[in-house]
Amino acid sequence: MNSKEQILQRSIEAKEIFLPHLSADPVIFGFDKKELKVLLIKMNYRKLWLLPGGYVGKNEDLDEAVVRILKDRVGITTDVYLDEFGVFGKRNRSELYFEDFDDTLFHKQRFISIGYYALYNPSRFNLVPDELSESGEWIYMSQLSEIELAMDHREIIEKALLTLREKISIKPIGYNLLPEKFTLSELQKLYEAILGKELNRGNFYRKIKNLGILNKLEEQRRGGAHKSPDLYSFDEEKYAQALKNGLNAW
Amino acid sequence: MNSKEQILQRSIEAKEIFLPHLSADPVIFGFDKKELKVLLIKMNYRKLWLLPGGYVGKNEDLDEAVVRILKDRVGITTDVYLDEFGVFGKRNRSELYFEDFDDTLFHKQRFISIGYYALYNPSRFNLVPDELSESGEWIYMSQLSEIELAMDHREIIEKALLTLREKISIKPIGYNLLPEKFTLSELQKLYEAILGKELNRGNFYRKIKNLGILNKLEEQRRGGAHKSPDLYSFDEEKYAQALKNGLNAW
Repeated sequence: MNSKEQILQRSIEAKEIFLPHLSADPVIFGFDKKELKVLLIKMNYRKLWLLPGGYVGKNEDLDEAVVRILKDRVGITTDVYLDEFGVFGKRNRSELYFEDFDDTLFHKQRFISIGYYALYNPSRFNLVPDELSESGEWIYMSQLSEIELAMDHREIIEKALLTLREKISIKPIGYNLLPEKFTLSELQKLYEAILGKELNRGNFYRKIKNLGILNKLEEQRRGGAHKSPDLYSFDEEKYAQALKNGLNAW
Repeated sequence: MNSKEQILQRSIEAKEIFLPHLSADPVIFGFDKKELKVLLIKMNYRKLWLLPGGYVGKNEDLDEAVVRILKDRVGITTDVYLDEFGVFGKRNRSELYFEDFDDTLFHKQRFISIGYYALYNPSRFNLVPDELSESGEWIYMSQLSEIELAMDHREIIEKALLTLREKISIKPIGYNLLPEKFTLSELQKLYEAILGKELNRGNFYRKIKNLGILNKLEEQRRGGAHKSPDLYSFDEEKYAQALKNGLNAW
């Protein structure tokens, strides 16, 4: 079965199972101690990079749908909190991708897509692309300008990144990507990866300590070339409070 | 024509004009120098309070739809920036409201609703409810617990308010509700209305000045019982920069 036949077959099932006009696109950011990546797939059909999106079941809550879509398309079953960050509803945003097909194809109708994002540690799982896809990969955000993305998926990723940047100034997010005990330098690298810029070390250390969510431990990270840096962990109670009330409460 | 007949007639048109399964609900907050209000309508049918929501045209961008919906339902034509803040996609969230009708009614299908919010000065326009509605009113947020809201509209309003509270800690929003020249006390009232709590005056003045977006004018507000307070305006360049980059940049 070639890639077009695969899609035609899926279209028949899809009309039974899914709501028309609604899709969900998960933007999964990965962080590997240095750089931010995004999880993309390439379909057998057309060979363009895409977010691992999908449709919403007729009897499925939207929140359930996005979790199930991630499982179906790339085999992610880990429990992950996906946060809605935007809705992409322009006319003709999705129809062109399937222009080789006639208009009865489920996939070719107008779709308004709900964007969700999450932060992940890429080393934690294997990608298992579905049979419609030839590959699933973590692409460095710094390389995104060099690849061809389908539909408005570049815009969706950019909006997700902007949201992540906004959120990190009000909530302690992404900290699940750090080991339980970490150095301030490791925490700074996480912020720099998300913000996409280098931060002044002195300013960062002062600001992050002022948030009052860190505990300095009586241990140091050993083994580096430099003086062994202090290790920190999160004060769980204050961390939870900051997640709830925000970091810069008035 | 009674209220049920009105809806039946609308259903026939709606199937022609609108996408199935998709709705938009605008949460319009008003501020009248003291308290936060929210714009609600009461339909002739069922007499419950509702957000002035509607459906998305088959040939309409989603952003256009929500602006048109506000115009159709309450006569708001002022140029207003509506920000998407959440998607409400639980099964059965909307079907029950129209339980008196049979399942062929357009309005009775499953709808996933996109929430948008905006901040408004209620005195700037008259509400003109559509013919399906017996009234449109600004309801004080403090009185919301006393009224009966349809579907999950209470949850939608609460999520909008949480978003507004988050946003005000990172962006200078809502300032369009102030006069061009304002006192720090007036600005504090805006923050207090949005945050739903009293703020310490000294702390607030210090923090708001530290943002660096205010210009102190060589004028005072006259006519009050107290010492004439200083007037301020926004430094437009710095204000625009803060809107773009956030207030608490790392």
